[in-house]
Amino acid sequence: MRDIKMKGFLELISIEEALERFFSSVELVRPEVEQVEIGDALGRVIAEDVHSEWDVPPFDRAAMDGYAARSDDTVGASLTNPLVLRVIGISDMGRRSDVAVGRFEAVRVSTGAPMPDGADSVIMIEYTHELDSDRIEIYRSLTPYKNVSAQGEDVKKGERVLKNSTILQPHDIGILAAVRRRRIKVLKKLNIAVLSTGNELVDLREEAASGKIIDINRHTLIALVKEIGCEPIDLGIATDRLEDIKLKIGEGTKSADIVVVSGGISVGIKDLVSEAVNTLGKPGVIAHGISMRPGMPSALAAVDNKPVILTPGNPVAAIIAFNTFVRPIVAKILGISTGHVKGQIIKARMTRKAPSQTGLRTFLRVVIEKRDEGFLAEPVRTSGAGIISSLVRANGMVTIPEWKEGLEQGEEVDVELLRPLER
Amino acid sequence: MRDIKMKGFLELISIEEALERFFSSVELVRPEVEQVEIGDALGRVIAEDVHSEWDVPPFDRAAMDGYAARSDDTVGASLTNPLVLRVIGISDMGRRSDVAVGRFEAVRVSTGAPMPDGADSVIMIEYTHELDSDRIEIYRSLTPYKNVSAQGEDVKKGERVLKNSTILQPHDIGILAAVRRRRIKVLKKLNIAVLSTGNELVDLREEAASGKIIDINRHTLIALVKEIGCEPIDLGIATDRLEDIKLKIGEGTKSADIVVVSGGISVGIKDLVSEAVNTLGKPGVIAHGISMRPGMPSALAAVDNKPVILTPGNPVAAIIAFNTFVRPIVAKILGISTGHVKGQIIKARMTRKAPSQTGLRTFLRVVIEKRDEGFLAEPVRTSGAGIISSLVRANGMVTIPEWKEGLEQGEEVDVELLRPLER
Repeated sequence: MRDIKMKGFLELISIEEALERFFSSVELVRPEVEQVEIGDALGRVIAEDVHSEWDVPPFDRAAMDGYAARSDDTVGASLTNPLVLRVIGISDMGRRSDVAVGRFEAVRVSTGAPMPDGADSVIMIEYTHELDSDRIEIYRSLTPYKNVSAQGEDVKKGERVLKNSTILQPHDIGILAAVRRRRIKVLKKLNIAVLSTGNELVDLREEAASGKIIDINRHTLIALVKEIGCEPIDLGIATDRLEDIKLKIGEGTKSADIVVVSGGISVGIKDLVSEAVNTLGKPGVIAHGISMRPGMPSALAAVDNKPVILTPGNPVAAIIAFNTFVRPIVAKILGISTGHVKGQIIKARMTRKAPSQTGLRTFLRVVIEKRDEGFLAEPVRTSGAGIISSLVRANGMVTIPEWKEGLEQGEEVDVELLRPLER
Repeated sequence: MRDIKMKGFLELISIEEALERFFSSVELVRPEVEQVEIGDALGRVIAEDVHSEWDVPPFDRAAMDGYAARSDDTVGASLTNPLVLRVIGISDMGRRSDVAVGRFEAVRVSTGAPMPDGADSVIMIEYTHELDSDRIEIYRSLTPYKNVSAQGEDVKKGERVLKNSTILQPHDIGILAAVRRRRIKVLKKLNIAVLSTGNELVDLREEAASGKIIDINRHTLIALVKEIGCEPIDLGIATDRLEDIKLKIGEGTKSADIVVVSGGISVGIKDLVSEAVNTLGKPGVIAHGISMRPGMPSALAAVDNKPVILTPGNPVAAIIAFNTFVRPIVAKILGISTGHVKGQIIKARMTRKAPSQTGLRTFLRVVIEKRDEGFLAEPVRTSGAGIISSLVRANGMVTIPEWKEGLEQGEEVDVELLRPLER
């Protein structure tokens, strides 16, 4: 008898080693570049360094409401020694005043208004008093550029404002507008094709005959593809016939950048999916049998340098395999940080012991509850990876490392939140 | 002279009090409900409790590869005392075997296959030995339901699988498929109209004349609207004329569920936006002047129960005001948790002192760097809220509470990550 824990794999390899083998065996193709309007660029990966062709702000602006004046005129002004300036005009927002400020002169300015020629500083309205329609007293002295947003203070002409490979966020869209960029180069969205395999599966739209079950995984995996900003391609369901599986995976490698297959890869009676991938092209299956639970029968493969990720048929294992393998591969192809964690991480204490097997990285679903003394993590009772309702009941995930033999009651753990906590 | 820190507000109120006043003065309207295909439901808020009309799995299934048998036949079987069973057929996935298992009989099953009649348990292939084509030895005894996924084990018929007001995530889409739901009731997406005000502003598509600056805020706010899953409506730019502002805000309250206005609300020479809102409908401005920095001149208002959120013209203040006020108002309208934090929270130590004023909640932009001893937070040097490039340079935000007077060098702080950290 073989060690039944190994489920027929001669040797399990770690998640990191599997990814390393994959990355060193496959020459990933960087996606093409396209131009989009900045209004359509949210969440996209930029494919250029963006340098500003302009100073931002484009001219010196008042940073406060008050009077623009010459700082060297104001030396010594104070509450006990007020100084009188002559008001020669108004510089309003959006219109540059055409008067120039001479010695002991001032121009009324509101925040954001262009600074009139001659003036180098603004005295705040609070430190002034209007004597009559064209004279004010001031109670403070000024230094050059006091209360002025200098031209180029935010961004200097020529300065790099966004780095290549940044995922564009709302404030990045703002900075693109600020430097007057209307269109921007971004990487094309990756297409990820999703295939389910198994004679037992029927599509949700069909009648479920006796002995058949609804295919869940395509729905979940397509949603995950959308969630990470890629475009899904639905390859449907393949029966457990080698030719059918080859045909559909081949369709995927032709039309998509990555193919994700669920089902049919446990080392049971047959492993048609691995066989299909191996006969379709090089290098075929690169790593198969990963020291993780759930998800152990997962495999990383490639057909002519197109990544093909094989996930187990169990719905929870398929989700975990997607997050574990497809996310970092997508990040690598796009050249973005893999530091992306989906949910917030919180500390919590285990309400009870949770077993795990040494040598397997275990993904434990938990329910987080907030108590006065902190967060508690209650393991969701489940009899297997097939239990997708466990992910709906759970609101957190705890990763138990390979070297640990389970978690103790009361032990503090890091929990990745799957949903925001109720308040 | 007034206290210049108050910028002309007689009294500042806290963020929480402003929201409380707002929620107690405005009768928020729950959006209408629509039906969508589950493939289009990712990220939407469901508007029904979903109960399953089916057991999942819909029949007893083998949970392991092996032989289905009757547990009471196997009593006493062991390695030293093997027991012989007659193999009478195969139950493959997707096809129910029509044989019934009698005494000392077994049916070959693969994981996921329907259990044949008569059998109540599965002996794993690893604990069996094939004697000839129709006889096996087994080395373990079985208990009822051993290695069987019982009908309804994942979800029982009638069980609630998803709670009203859940934001649908990939595994929720999976559970909907599992319980054979093709369409689902969701709340209609909220429309949020965005308006910029100011004579100094020009649209990105126009030529920037002397004294004019590009309108950044509509671009940023529209991106934020998309990011929180709502539909933006672009109201363009209003000049600093009361009639123009009234017209455009009025357009917004007619076409959208929420209106967000940026600019024109500092208590300077004129506050036309507040005046416009107050003359458009009841209750008008509810809270104006918030103890926060940046964002102090923000205001919460409503016109005939349509929320109108006024944010400062400064790009960074506008973003912070959006996150502080629009996000919780949207959450309240949709009936979802406001516990949503955009980024991951990490602990970091301040590289240097950062001043803040007691009485104001201060939002400090920082750059996080990873060191061997942990994360360091370096405040981004900026001279004002207008500096949108500070948000691009920063990768984290620290909230300094009102009661604190700045942060000390070396102090440990919670940082919300604005971008994933580089590795």
